[in-house]
Amino acid sequence: MSQGDTRAAGTGFAGRLASCVASRESQIVLGLDPDPARLWPAAARADQPGGSPAERAAAAVAAHCALLIDAAGPACVAVKPQVACFERLGPPGWTALAGVAAHARAAGLLVLADAKRGDIDVTAAAYAQGLLTGLDTPWGRVDPLGADAVTVNPYLGRDALDPFAAAAREAGAGLFVLVRTSNPGAADVEDAEMAAGGALWERVAKLVARLGDDLDGGGGPLSAVGAVMGATAPEHLARARELMPRTPFLLPGIGAQGGRVEDLAPAFAPGPAGGLVTASRSIARAHESSGGDPASAAAAEAERLRAAAWALQGP
Amino acid sequence: MSQGDTRAAGTGFAGRLASCVASRESQIVLGLDPDPARLWPAAARADQPGGSPAERAAAAVAAHCALLIDAAGPACVAVKPQVACFERLGPPGWTALAGVAAHARAAGLLVLADAKRGDIDVTAAAYAQGLLTGLDTPWGRVDPLGADAVTVNPYLGRDALDPFAAAAREAGAGLFVLVRTSNPGAADVEDAEMAAGGALWERVAKLVARLGDDLDGGGGPLSAVGAVMGATAPEHLARARELMPRTPFLLPGIGAQGGRVEDLAPAFAPGPAGGLVTASRSIARAHESSGGDPASAAAAEAERLRAAAWALQGP
Repeated sequence: MSQGDTRAAGTGFAGRLASCVASRESQIVLGLDPDPARLWPAAARADQPGGSPAERAAAAVAAHCALLIDAAGPACVAVKPQVACFERLGPPGWTALAGVAAHARAAGLLVLADAKRGDIDVTAAAYAQGLLTGLDTPWGRVDPLGADAVTVNPYLGRDALDPFAAAAREAGAGLFVLVRTSNPGAADVEDAEMAAGGALWERVAKLVARLGDDLDGGGGPLSAVGAVMGATAPEHLARARELMPRTPFLLPGIGAQGGRVEDLAPAFAPGPAGGLVTASRSIARAHESSGGDPASAAAAEAERLRAAAWALQGP
Repeated sequence: MSQGDTRAAGTGFAGRLASCVASRESQIVLGLDPDPARLWPAAARADQPGGSPAERAAAAVAAHCALLIDAAGPACVAVKPQVACFERLGPPGWTALAGVAAHARAAGLLVLADAKRGDIDVTAAAYAQGLLTGLDTPWGRVDPLGADAVTVNPYLGRDALDPFAAAAREAGAGLFVLVRTSNPGAADVEDAEMAAGGALWERVAKLVARLGDDLDGGGGPLSAVGAVMGATAPEHLARARELMPRTPFLLPGIGAQGGRVEDLAPAFAPGPAGGLVTASRSIARAHESSGGDPASAAAAEAERLRAAAWALQGP
């Protein structure tokens, strides 16, 4: 598929992110993790009669995401499709994901593909081709999903992240490396205490900061290599900011998982684009608690989050 | 797609694995990581004229994998498709992956999907639906890839592995959790020294052993929760076996990455199915060093590895 407005800007990811945050006055990332059994009613009616269950479910999922983007997108700076929710629908799910990404780009939103991929060098490069750069084959060019950024997993170490970083540079895209996630199980590995002092996630944070500096020479207020920092443990944010001064933070865990926007101030130290607040269920299912139709409730909740996060910038 | 012979056996993964290893007298796992630019000549001619580049490349990739399975499969117990290599071809790549898995099952081989997925609870469950269990939607049931086992990433901790374990139990499938991988960068995170002593990978190894015991009550010689242990650092295998006495080890890194079959003896302590030796490029590209046609060279190299690994059992 062709690359939409947001990637045609020609600048790298950090500049594009800062510019989009400033112009849209939003740091809200709309999470898209559609469950075929819980779609908005208008979307559930949009299936393709005659198709296979996967095709019909994928069409309805795509319609749901488009409605959600149309309703909540104006208060957001990006969408974060959860790749698992499309992948489980097989090939039609991947077709739906590409369509949803195109819809978001056409609405002026960045696309952060939440894929959490991670593998050794040659395999990491293959994942990066699918998500970021595409590949040339003897039968012609295969286009990528064309995400503006992807989430990646650091367990295998720096040499498994480098191919993603190289692909990101080539595509003018960004990465968000898992550092300290929002789930209780983060205590098992990420919080493990190191012999040299500190937690494992702090070691990973340093690796992420170096990777970003190596990519752009350390210039500029914001790096193209971001970090996933769960909003459910805000006590870590100040330390994370110290270790990763130029790193954009992707902050999941607001709403359904218990995190509060008001606790996220340290994320914004490098500027308004230093923290991106993701929200999924709390927007898509806002009508379940607030009442009203799904679209209006989603728009209102996204706007409420936008204003709350933007107010943390200070004067 | 329907589930083939190997999964219809009705037993759990551990029993099925042990039985397949015994009957095929092989611990060799045929890695499938097809590069569209380096397919066997007979496969490269098998594309679909008139299709898109992705469709034509995916058809050729599927043909390549089928030829490789036909040639080397008789000396192997399983195939390990590298999901990234299919994913980068978009929806047609996922169709090709399903076809390759079906071809391998029809040949009596287990299918270990090398996906290295990992995410928080609800998302991990979505990945597991796609790979292992399928899901029910308002439009009918969507079938899974139907892998016999999948590789998963432990960085997010135990609660991110539990949904995969639950799905594996439901599907009679297995997991292979990344513990200590074969790449040099494993030193960055996996080998990090812990305040409590030992390396991070040893902490993960204990978590993997517990997860396996929790899944089956600790009974039986072999667990359904395996570990990925790179064959490039055989000095760790004895310690890994101590920490994970019932855990099947998936051992990548033989051949192109420098590991040697002869160094893997500790893996086989729980029995012949305790170690699975994966080889990809060294089989698929054997003709490049040995000469001859690709299929004969692949068959010969797979058989050479099979005999070398089987000889490590002792009398």
